Amino acid sequence: MRILMSKMEGPEGFRTYSPGSPLTGYGVAKVLESGHPDYKKGDLVWGFTRWEEYSLVPASLILFKIEHTDVPLSYYTGILGMPGMTAYAGFFEVGLPKKGEKVFVSAASGAVGQLVGQFAKLTGCYVVGSAGSKDKVDLLKTKLGFDDAFNYKEEPDLNAALKRYFPEGIDIYFENVGGKTLDAVLLNMRVHGRIIVCGMVSQYNLDQPEGVTNLANLIFRRIRMQGFNVADYYQLYPKFLEYVIPKIKEGKIVYVEDIVEGLEKAPPALVGLFSGRNVGKQVIVLAHE
Amino acid sequence: MRILMSKMEGPEGFRTYSPGSPLTGYGVAKVLESGHPDYKKGDLVWGFTRWEEYSLVPASLILFKIEHTDVPLSYYTGILGMPGMTAYAGFFEVGLPKKGEKVFVSAASGAVGQLVGQFAKLTGCYVVGSAGSKDKVDLLKTKLGFDDAFNYKEEPDLNAALKRYFPEGIDIYFENVGGKTLDAVLLNMRVHGRIIVCGMVSQYNLDQPEGVTNLANLIFRRIRMQGFNVADYYQLYPKFLEYVIPKIKEGKIVYVEDIVEGLEKAPPALVGLFSGRNVGKQVIVLAHE
Repeated sequence: MRILMSKMEGPEGFRTYSPGSPLTGYGVAKVLESGHPDYKKGDLVWGFTRWEEYSLVPASLILFKIEHTDVPLSYYTGILGMPGMTAYAGFFEVGLPKKGEKVFVSAASGAVGQLVGQFAKLTGCYVVGSAGSKDKVDLLKTKLGFDDAFNYKEEPDLNAALKRYFPEGIDIYFENVGGKTLDAVLLNMRVHGRIIVCGMVSQYNLDQPEGVTNLANLIFRRIRMQGFNVADYYQLYPKFLEYVIPKIKEGKIVYVEDIVEGLEKAPPALVGLFSGRNVGKQVIVLAHE
Repeated sequence: MRILMSKMEGPEGFRTYSPGSPLTGYGVAKVLESGHPDYKKGDLVWGFTRWEEYSLVPASLILFKIEHTDVPLSYYTGILGMPGMTAYAGFFEVGLPKKGEKVFVSAASGAVGQLVGQFAKLTGCYVVGSAGSKDKVDLLKTKLGFDDAFNYKEEPDLNAALKRYFPEGIDIYFENVGGKTLDAVLLNMRVHGRIIVCGMVSQYNLDQPEGVTNLANLIFRRIRMQGFNVADYYQLYPKFLEYVIPKIKEGKIVYVEDIVEGLEKAPPALVGLFSGRNVGKQVIVLAHE
C-alpha cells in the first residue's frame, strides 16, 4: 500500500522542485524492510516518501508512524499529515484566534484552507472563504460549513467584496495566495489583526510578483503578519491528533480529497494545483493496501 | 516655556493632518491654569499640545507630568517622549532582540532610529543604519555608535548593499521607510527574523505606493512582520524612564536634535521630514523656560 501526494516542500521548494529530490512528496507507505530499530516490516508510516513506488529512506528523514488506522489512510497525506498540522499550527499557534473573531481564508477549499475554516467554526469564529469556482464555493458553504464564501474570479473589486462580507473588518486572514488578494485584505483588517502567511500560490509562477501596496496598514492597524513553516511545530503532532481524530469520527470535521490513480498522473496533478483544477486535497494513489 | 514638535500622530495621521487637530503635535508645556486635580500651575507636562503657543487641553487627553528636570526639557519631545517610547516598545517589545543578533535600521538618524541603534548596541547586537546624506551617515558611525552605516541614495542596488553589510543576513529590521528598502530587506532576512514596522515614510506622499514584491520570503524564512503603535505601550513608560535616564546621565545614550525657533518654522520643518532635510529629531522651540 502506498499513497504519494503531489505537494512540494522545503524553502523555495517550488523553485527548486524536482520529483526525485528527497524533500519533495509527502506520502503514506508501508515498511517492507527496515534496518532502523524504530520501524519494522509492516509498519505504516507517513512523511517524505518521494515520487516513486518504492523508496529507500535514509535514517535522517523523519517518518511518522501511523497508529490510528480506523480512518482512511489517505488522510495521512492531508488532514492527519502535513496539511492538517499546517492548518492547526498556523491557525491556532500563529493566529491565536478568539471566539467571535472574523476570519477570512483564501484558497479555502484547498488541502489546508478547508481545515482552517472548520477549525475557525469550531472556535466560534465567523469565517468566509474565497475560491476559484462555483463548485468550490458551494462546497465551502455546504459541506465545509463556512458562514459564507465567494468566487474571487467573479469579483472585479476584491476590496468591495471583502467590505460586503466583513463590514466590521477582518481579525484573522489565513493567507494562501498573496498578490491582489493580500492588498485588498490589508484595506479591511481590524486593529490588532493577524495575517497568517502560509502560502502565496498566486505569485509562485510569475516572473515578477505583483507588488503589494497597502502595507502601511500594518502600522495604522497594528497588524502582525507572520510567515511560518509547519516543520517548527511537529512537537504538537500528538496534541493535534488528540484534537482532530475524535472530531473526524464524530463527523464534526470533514475532509475533501481529489484522488487520482497512478504515478503518471502526478505531474499534471501538480501543475493543476497552480491553475486551481483540483477540488480539495490532491492525492495520488500508487497502490492500495 | 513651551516646546512644540512637528511629528504628526494618530491612525493615518499624515492623511488627515491639520495643525489644529487635537491629535497632532506632541510638545512640552508648562501649566498656566488647571481645573484638573492631577495638574497644578507650574507643572511641566508633555503630550498632545497642538501647534499653538497657548493650549486649552481637555481632560480626555493624557498629558504626562515631567518629574526629571535635570535633562534638557526638549528631550520630552524626543528621547524621553513619544519617539523614545516608540523606539523602546518597538525594539524590545515587538522585536524581542537577543544578544548577538544583526539589526538593520532605516531612517537611522531620525528621532526614533537613532535610539533603536543605540538600544541595539546596548543589547549586544550588531547594528547598521541607512540614511540619506553623508552627514547623517557620519553621525551614525561616530556619535551614535552604529557598527556601520550607508547612504541609501548612493546605493543603486540596495540588495547588494545589504548583502555587503549583512553577509549572514538580518535578524531584526526596524522599518521606518517602506517601499524599495523593505523589498531589498526581505531578500536578506534570516530564518525567524522580525520586521518591526514603525513607519513607511517614503510611501506616505506617493499617489501610488511602490509595490513590495518579495513578501513570499515571510514564509520561506518564517518571518514575523509586525506593525505597532506606541499608544499600546505607555504602561511601560516608568520602566522606560528607569532604563534610559541613567544612560543619558552617564553618556551611554546620546540624542541628536534639530532645533528651530518659532511657530512659523513649523510647517517647513514638517515638510522637511519627508525630504530628509532634518538631521535628528526635529524640534520647534516656541518659548524658553
